Amino acid sequence: MPNGAMMDAPIRIFGDWGTSRLRLYLRQGKSVLDGRDGPGVGALTASPEATFLELIKPWREARPESALLCGMVGSRNGWVEAPYASCPAGPDELRARMVRFEADGLPVAIVPGLSCVNPLGGPDVLRGEETQIFGALAQHPDLKAGRHLLALPGTHTKWAVVEDGRLVTFLTAPVGELFALLRDHSTLAKAAAGDAQASAAGFALGLKRQAEAGPASLPHLLFETRSRQLLDGLPAADAMGFLSGLLIGADVAGAAAWFGDAAKVVLIGDPALTDLYAKALAARGVAALPLDGEAAVLAGLLALSREPTGEIHALA
Amino acid sequence: MPNGAMMDAPIRIFGDWGTSRLRLYLRQGKSVLDGRDGPGVGALTASPEATFLELIKPWREARPESALLCGMVGSRNGWVEAPYASCPAGPDELRARMVRFEADGLPVAIVPGLSCVNPLGGPDVLRGEETQIFGALAQHPDLKAGRHLLALPGTHTKWAVVEDGRLVTFLTAPVGELFALLRDHSTLAKAAAGDAQASAAGFALGLKRQAEAGPASLPHLLFETRSRQLLDGLPAADAMGFLSGLLIGADVAGAAAWFGDAAKVVLIGDPALTDLYAKALAARGVAALPLDGEAAVLAGLLALSREPTGEIHALA
Repeated sequence: MPNGAMMDAPIRIFGDWGTSRLRLYLRQGKSVLDGRDGPGVGALTASPEATFLELIKPWREARPESALLCGMVGSRNGWVEAPYASCPAGPDELRARMVRFEADGLPVAIVPGLSCVNPLGGPDVLRGEETQIFGALAQHPDLKAGRHLLALPGTHTKWAVVEDGRLVTFLTAPVGELFALLRDHSTLAKAAAGDAQASAAGFALGLKRQAEAGPASLPHLLFETRSRQLLDGLPAADAMGFLSGLLIGADVAGAAAWFGDAAKVVLIGDPALTDLYAKALAARGVAALPLDGEAAVLAGLLALSREPTGEIHALA
Repeated sequence: MPNGAMMDAPIRIFGDWGTSRLRLYLRQGKSVLDGRDGPGVGALTASPEATFLELIKPWREARPESALLCGMVGSRNGWVEAPYASCPAGPDELRARMVRFEADGLPVAIVPGLSCVNPLGGPDVLRGEETQIFGALAQHPDLKAGRHLLALPGTHTKWAVVEDGRLVTFLTAPVGELFALLRDHSTLAKAAAGDAQASAAGFALGLKRQAEAGPASLPHLLFETRSRQLLDGLPAADAMGFLSGLLIGADVAGAAAWFGDAAKVVLIGDPALTDLYAKALAARGVAALPLDGEAAVLAGLLALSREPTGEIHALA
């Protein structure tokens, strides 16, 4: 690899600015020179512009040529609204729909979110996941050909289909939010302890119950989180794992119904969470390819910034 | 009706003591002489005994001969635990399993809750609803013969089957709790306004979406509460009605799957809530017989206290 070319690569700022967290990176080509964390757009104490400029102040002397941001920063309640692009969409459509402006002389671009009519016939939206998805494709060029099913587990889990390198449809299931609401505020969780990831036994039992009772049963199974503690000897330490197994099992069963059975699902996200989804998929005989969410968003911002990726670089 | 016999009927205290509220009644036969409200067992500031004795102090001079209580007051965290009786069970089994003790010289009995293995094969429990159910049967003696499906909508909606006057099985769906959690704490409800009962249009759309997307779709449909506001022009004032339609529609569809299609469902509860369930049932071509929940619990306590009901009275 021509090292000199890398050294000449422009210095840029990349940012993943969601509702609850901002992660900023100073990059040169594929190298991360520095990183800083800041508040999410739902937790700002100053304007987005002031917050951003304050955080990048130490980087200005490195003369970054531009900044590229993705996530809720482009929502109506973010910094500058980047209206949704429609599916099907690939990196070219996202680049064409970026919102561009200047902040204290620095060119800033925000990646638009995507909208679609989901497989249930409902309107659906995402912001930030588009960058992770195209990052995963940049990291794994074999995913650029053919049809692939991806899942991005989180507060609002997204299931997505890419065909020949373009995102064609997706579906949101607010599974992480449901889990947190039930864990933190419900009578079902009362007296329960432990977390979903630690209790493998509870998680396995939740998956099993979901599979036994069938796909329509979610509201009716939830109460077992409590009744099994009262009557059935479910240890309190396993209760949150059980709840997580019910919810993730229902999400995976639903996705199989909407998208058809896939032999493999690409999982992008926090490793603890993609591991739970991999277990739920394995229980249905489906393989998983887990990818780290932070690495995917960085790869996506790099790909969308049109900088030479490893792959394109080799052709240059 | 022999009025003298009614005047000679013993004076008793009846109480419906749930998690969030206590309702006490001073009764003579079928007449309610007085009523008082107090804190639920989840909101006590003194012991259950002290709370109870303080509330009934003004009634002691009327020389009530006993008190009969139902609800969470008989749970592990209530006053005195009344262990669950098992289904199938009728009024005789409940009477036989009442916990009896004295409070400051007054005989007190607590109605036990019921446990069962529900139609999904899971352990299930209820407390308080057994009294409403047998109250409904006392109010409508035609329900004492044959098989009937009942629903008691609330924080934890109960579906129950009575056969020849006995409760044979039931199933809990924490639909009211899910609705409240999503309304009060979720990002789905953010910026939404209105309540479920006021927004008939939102509720009807939620029912329709649930019916279109099928029974496995609940976690995947929930996000439409938000996305339809963003993209589809769903008025914010209709969003909570929409959410309620999704949840109640899924509950009713699930119940049809577990209990079989019934021509009629007896609905016991708060009229505003039984009205929503009646609409969801009507959309599936099922009739509803709505009964007021407070009247049902009073009729049930009277029936379980072995006092002559109207029906038995006529035979005497």
